[in-house]
Amino acid sequence: MPQTLRREVCEANLRLPALGLVTLTWGNVSALDAKKGLVVIKGSGIPYADLTPDHMSVVDLADGRCVTGPKPSSDLATHLALYRRFPVIGGVVHTHSRWATVWAQAGRDIPVLGTTHADYFRGPVPCARPLTPEETTAGYEEATGHALAELFTDESILQLPAALAAGHGPFAWGRNAAEAVEHSLVLEEIAMTAWHTLALEPQAKLSQHVLDKHFSRKHGKNAYYGQ
Amino acid sequence: MPQTLRREVCEANLRLPALGLVTLTWGNVSALDAKKGLVVIKGSGIPYADLTPDHMSVVDLADGRCVTGPKPSSDLATHLALYRRFPVIGGVVHTHSRWATVWAQAGRDIPVLGTTHADYFRGPVPCARPLTPEETTAGYEEATGHALAELFTDESILQLPAALAAGHGPFAWGRNAAEAVEHSLVLEEIAMTAWHTLALEPQAKLSQHVLDKHFSRKHGKNAYYGQ
Amino acid sequence: MPQTLRREVCEANLRLPALGLVTLTWGNVSALDAKKGLVVIKGSGIPYADLTPDHMSVVDLADGRCVTGPKPSSDLATHLALYRRFPVIGGVVHTHSRWATVWAQAGRDIPVLGTTHADYFRGPVPCARPLTPEETTAGYEEATGHALAELFTDESILQLPAALAAGHGPFAWGRNAAEAVEHSLVLEEIAMTAWHTLALEPQAKLSQHVLDKHFSRKHGKNAYYGQ
Amino acid sequence: MPQTLRREVCEANLRLPALGLVTLTWGNVSALDAKKGLVVIKGSGIPYADLTPDHMSVVDLADGRCVTGPKPSSDLATHLALYRRFPVIGGVVHTHSRWATVWAQAGRDIPVLGTTHADYFRGPVPCARPLTPEETTAGYEEATGHALAELFTDESILQLPAALAAGHGPFAWGRNAAEAVEHSLVLEEIAMTAWHTLALEPQAKLSQHVLDKHFSRKHGKNAYYGQ
Repeated sequence: MPQTLRREVCEANLRLPALGLVTLTWGNVSALDAKKGLVVIKGSGIPYADLTPDHMSVVDLADGRCVTGPKPSSDLATHLALYRRFPVIGGVVHTHSRWATVWAQAGRDIPVLGTTHADYFRGPVPCARPLTPEETTAGYEEATGHALAELFTDESILQLPAALAAGHGPFAWGRNAAEAVEHSLVLEEIAMTAWHTLALEPQAKLSQHVLDKHFSRKHGKNAYYGQ
Repeated sequence: MPQTLRREVCEANLRLPALGLVTLTWGNVSALDAKKGLVVIKGSGIPYADLTPDHMSVVDLADGRCVTGPKPSSDLATHLALYRRFPVIGGVVHTHSRWATVWAQAGRDIPVLGTTHADYFRGPVPCARPLTPEETTAGYEEATGHALAELFTDESILQLPAALAAGHGPFAWGRNAAEAVEHSLVLEEIAMTAWHTLALEPQAKLSQHVLDKHFSRKHGKNAYYGQ
Repeated sequence: MPQTLRREVCEANLRLPALGLVTLTWGNVSALDAKKGLVVIKGSGIPYADLTPDHMSVVDLADGRCVTGPKPSSDLATHLALYRRFPVIGGVVHTHSRWATVWAQAGRDIPVLGTTHADYFRGPVPCARPLTPEETTAGYEEATGHALAELFTDESILQLPAALAAGHGPFAWGRNAAEAVEHSLVLEEIAMTAWHTLALEPQAKLSQHVLDKHFSRKHGKNAYYGQ
Repeated sequence: MPQTLRREVCEANLRLPALGLVTLTWGNVSALDAKKGLVVIKGSGIPYADLTPDHMSVVDLADGRCVTGPKPSSDLATHLALYRRFPVIGGVVHTHSRWATVWAQAGRDIPVLGTTHADYFRGPVPCARPLTPEETTAGYEEATGHALAELFTDESILQLPAALAAGHGPFAWGRNAAEAVEHSLVLEEIAMTAWHTLALEPQAKLSQHVLDKHFSRKHGKNAYYGQ
């Protein structure tokens, strides 16, 4: 099972440069094996061109120790904080994709301006609060995860499957690694269009009834959507 | 005939990702077989990488029921509303292409700022009114089509072969599927250049005589244009 | 000789889509055979994917009549007006490339904001005046050429090898077709960077002494430049 | 050794167009052989498509004379000024990459707005002062190097491995050619995101404690970072 998951996580990592979401090594995908209490994540600093399943680290969900494979990505603690707080999360992605990073650096939530957004996110994509100097010193990466987790409830976590680490960049998640990668891609598209929409029309806003309609026709037991 | 049309519609759908106009499955092309009263449209939610003619649904123009093939795209009712109101339309395209979506989300018509626009569209590309909560609840996709159709007359429908669904994205059409795809591409180009033109020079405007000249040298019985 | 020139002009045309400067058929390159008084230009409306030397029209410089090959591009008269007024021009390019078109639609000269500009253009890239209704009716394409030609003298024409047709798009030229294509590409780069430079710093300006230095180290008998 | 270095410098030069950092011949990479007092740099004006190690010039660090190979890039004197002033520099890159050039043309430092910036640059990427007319006349390229060098100390030169030549474009450096190329790429990313961040939120700023944290976790003896 960890070996299958390592293949899946490797493939999900490789989708990031293919989709134009990472430059150099600025990104990583992880996935959870809930039964075994293990997390598989990209090894630290390995170039994407060389990536194989053997470059995936297998770590213990409870204590973060590496069980198999190379030293894990330095963002591991952020991923673990999200998995621990929200057991429904099965995959997490972090990138520095251009447009989502712009919003993170601006410290701004991405408002719901269109149906593309509403198809995937039931509300603004929130930007976390800045970390305090104390948090930055004592466990920066874990504190990043806690600041992201504060923004969600058990109910909202899969209805709003992404958030921005202030001054840093986006994190996205889903029921598995592939879904988390898809949410990263969607986030990049809505970040780009939201930026240009607001510059053209600062009063732009999607009405609540259209937001609800788009989210509910695609998610939940009455979903019927598919383009 | 439906089999030939299914191939054509499949090819037209495949041009969308090749032209950079769709992300994931965010787009669909349909075409009309007017004699048989049938519409061929992309099947619901099928990834572009896998698309074959067999993934095209054949539906009845009159009642929208699927005659052959998979479940049709959930945007079917919007396409049908356009075909029913304007019999000259032979192909319809919907995408969430970035720049046209920006204008749709801003709820703004795209003004005529240059001859590229005038070569294809005899006036601003209009943005439809937002839908009411009642319309959104009772037949959202069909109401989207009606709101688009309201913007046109029998005379203007092929002289202005695209419009924006407010808060959503662009629809384009033509005498057949290939022409509708071409209009989608042109729309994306003029949406991008119009955005940056207005930011540079808010008073920009193409004079009416140049607009008329460019449209008439390319369309109608005295057309002579070809770059 | 015309056969060699047809090959050269075909290759120069094919560079336009390869460089991302044209969408669909929105562009054309021509070249002059000064000895024979012939101009070779892309045939009208031929898709770039299919282009061969046989799709190049050979026309008479003096009267514009087609000597060999298909119907010439509808922009022929603009090209001819430039060749007739300035005998040093050996190649002309027209495109609707995105960033240069933005400036043309805004009706604005592109100011000299950096050395990339100064390396190729000894001053702002000028935007021509809008055409009158009378000009638009009586020989629109030729009038476009005259409006561009008005902006230059015999001395400046090769020191400023591009201009913008207002509300339309860029024209560029050079001693031959390949050089004209290169100037089209440079123009697109400086149009993009100038747009963003002015938005960031409206007072930006390159000093005259640096402009002169860059232009003169690359052009004329004391040139020594090469990156 | 110079032959090995010529291969390395050739490869580093070829990465520039592969990474989308150069148009035409607008860029060059050099590297230092400190023991022999030689600098290897791209030959002047050679198209990237044709580049081989034999197109690399080997020049004397002390007097700039060409020892082997073709005429060196006309930017040689700028590279030499940096190597002479800061012996820790082992590789230098110059490009006209779009987003960094925008900031150079605006004459503005790129502020620290995010952790991507802080991971590589311990402070704003500075823009040099404009050159005087006298400097422009008497050794323009060397004066460009001196104006860049003025911005740094022996301590900061590798903590801030890039700067902008005002009205011109970016220079970046590192302990070797490959690292200098990587810094050029990072600079382009942060120039793009900084532009859009400030337009969205003019008050954006990364806190000093996060800047210090990101730089120190990646550099120096306590570094542990790797995504």
